[in-house]
Amino acid sequence: MKFRYISLLSALLITGSICIGQTTQTAPVEDFKPTSTNQPGKQFPQVNSERRVRASISAPQAQKVMLDIGGKRYDLTKDEKGVWTGVSDPLDEGFHYYQMNIDGAQVPDPGSLFFYGASRWGSGIEIPAKDQEFYALKDVPHGVVREQLYYSKITESWRRCFVYTPPDYDKNISARYPVLYLQHGSGEDETGWAVQGKANLILDNLIAKKKAVPMIIVMDKGYATKAGQTQQPQGAPQRGAGGMSAFEEVMIKEIIPMIDANYRTKADRLNRAMAGLSMGANQTIQITMNNLDVFSNIAGFSGTSNYPNTTAIDPATFQGGKYKDGAAVNKQVKVFWLGLGTKEPNPFPASVRAFRDMLEKQGIKYVWYESQETAHEWLTWRRDLYQFAPLLFR
Amino acid sequence: MKFRYISLLSALLITGSICIGQTTQTAPVEDFKPTSTNQPGKQFPQVNSERRVRASISAPQAQKVMLDIGGKRYDLTKDEKGVWTGVSDPLDEGFHYYQMNIDGAQVPDPGSLFFYGASRWGSGIEIPAKDQEFYALKDVPHGVVREQLYYSKITESWRRCFVYTPPDYDKNISARYPVLYLQHGSGEDETGWAVQGKANLILDNLIAKKKAVPMIIVMDKGYATKAGQTQQPQGAPQRGAGGMSAFEEVMIKEIIPMIDANYRTKADRLNRAMAGLSMGANQTIQITMNNLDVFSNIAGFSGTSNYPNTTAIDPATFQGGKYKDGAAVNKQVKVFWLGLGTKEPNPFPASVRAFRDMLEKQGIKYVWYESQETAHEWLTWRRDLYQFAPLLFR
Repeated sequence: MKFRYISLLSALLITGSICIGQTTQTAPVEDFKPTSTNQPGKQFPQVNSERRVRASISAPQAQKVMLDIGGKRYDLTKDEKGVWTGVSDPLDEGFHYYQMNIDGAQVPDPGSLFFYGASRWGSGIEIPAKDQEFYALKDVPHGVVREQLYYSKITESWRRCFVYTPPDYDKNISARYPVLYLQHGSGEDETGWAVQGKANLILDNLIAKKKAVPMIIVMDKGYATKAGQTQQPQGAPQRGAGGMSAFEEVMIKEIIPMIDANYRTKADRLNRAMAGLSMGANQTIQITMNNLDVFSNIAGFSGTSNYPNTTAIDPATFQGGKYKDGAAVNKQVKVFWLGLGTKEPNPFPASVRAFRDMLEKQGIKYVWYESQETAHEWLTWRRDLYQFAPLLFR
Repeated sequence: MKFRYISLLSALLITGSICIGQTTQTAPVEDFKPTSTNQPGKQFPQVNSERRVRASISAPQAQKVMLDIGGKRYDLTKDEKGVWTGVSDPLDEGFHYYQMNIDGAQVPDPGSLFFYGASRWGSGIEIPAKDQEFYALKDVPHGVVREQLYYSKITESWRRCFVYTPPDYDKNISARYPVLYLQHGSGEDETGWAVQGKANLILDNLIAKKKAVPMIIVMDKGYATKAGQTQQPQGAPQRGAGGMSAFEEVMIKEIIPMIDANYRTKADRLNRAMAGLSMGANQTIQITMNNLDVFSNIAGFSGTSNYPNTTAIDPATFQGGKYKDGAAVNKQVKVFWLGLGTKEPNPFPASVRAFRDMLEKQGIKYVWYESQETAHEWLTWRRDLYQFAPLLFR
């Protein structure tokens, strides 16, 4: 089965609707400011109140420089000093991967911080959201994010995850905590949730308001290749004997035991949750439903395990019949949660709709959340986490 | 006082000896391989057994593309597909910041991982060192690196440090640990030591061999601006009333108390060390000698507190007369440690020599280490840490 992370950019590229645009025709509002994702001290890129991006780069000998953002390329214009500048159309609120194009070379913008997405480290930009308070760095107690190295025998390689421990973890040294396993999307990696996802700040803010139970969050990499096997294309879950993907095997047999051995966890199914976005949602729903002795809480952010299909699901055959007995699922699953942004491109809305129809037909209870006016990007997923985490471990 | 981090690149730029070179004339040895600092799956840049770098980038419409590395720019040549490729001269072993130049635009190489140095996030490359084993990721118990956020009242801003806790820290929950405060150089930040510095892996390897006492390492940012004051140019330590730099005040009044409150430290001078590289060495020697009630172990990697002066130091007046009474210094300081690479550019060798002459004149004991065949870069500093850490807290 093929599964691809569709950013707004790549979705438009795939459907062939990429535009080569001139810099906006109407004069933009001149209240541009450097963005929160700029490198220290860098004046560009900037964003204005219309959510337009102004990019600028010195390239005195270049013939053509473009800003490539939000599925569109914008020609920049050169001034007498050789500095190229231009403005985009208004973009959706939230986080966008982007790049510059200089005489045909696709390169990161040296003005921006770099993030891992679209299968590369490259530029990213934050378009301020009206509700940005919920993931802002505030004067509340903060947890820490730890880089945890571990050796995987299944892949015969060193792997890394990031582990959020809540503010009281190092003080309250006899307390044990429930765990949320939180996965990125296709073309992303274990850095996504704690950097552009702001998972740590979202939980710090929720815990400070007593809206969420203090919990550990484990953010690992959703790709794994079994030793001796050829690496699969990114996004193609690799299935070994018994239909278990390599990542599922790493998660169940290595990551969870490693976390339970190294952190003060409540190591039982009632205190374990898994959530993921896009490809990570697909993986989450498959892995949790295959392992209900391990997990009792499940969330799919912008994705379900029937992706990319949009046709009606037959519960008798789908995913080995795991949804056949709806009453049994309801008994075992404490929280089944699905979310989607209202501006997400196809096939996400239709694919998630088909999955919901199946759940409803089977009488399986689930929580449904729509993120208003957001696309297939990190603002949707930050909101998903903010909505989902308070329901856990109650 | 002005203090600048002189990378090999900027040293050559400053002294005006920047070269615009053609791709090497003699044919390179054709054993090029992708480097350890490449982005996942990227085939370029590559390095060969002569320590030459081959860079490659697609830029079909460009007129001129250069690789800018090691203080020299190399013209790349274009093939029929629009891909530009070229090879550098042999480079020193170790870690180098570099960039690409596309028709005059200075941009990161999209094939490399990105590092903070030279006051920017940009490309870096590892030229394999003969002794790379001591900082390799090995099958030994690993500590974790934690991202610790804290609010600084002095600067009225949120700051961040990275904290290495040794392998047994979370298991041995009644044990307390000594602390090494470890600083980066000019134009670098709190990410340097745990990423390109490999401080965590160096300590994991030393601790596994019982060559170093398990310790906590705190890596903070050596820049601070007091609230209400104008930001100083990078590298210029800001001095407030009483001659205390803003960073010194943050270190003594905020970072150390925060670490002692949040980690299981041995919170006394005998169990506290500070070390730094280049600008961080200057800061370390000043801060520790001003605060011998706080620290008893001091190390300067490629730098001393008389930088950039190379003239004889008068202990009666230098740094407020802190070295006047050599016997008193010997009594208070457990380890005074200085290191330098044999290929470092001026003024480092002469400046460090003048400082050592002063120590010797005063009868102050210190350990001297020369890193053979290394420049003013991270291989020197990794070796410094590997040599210095075993002497601590004995």
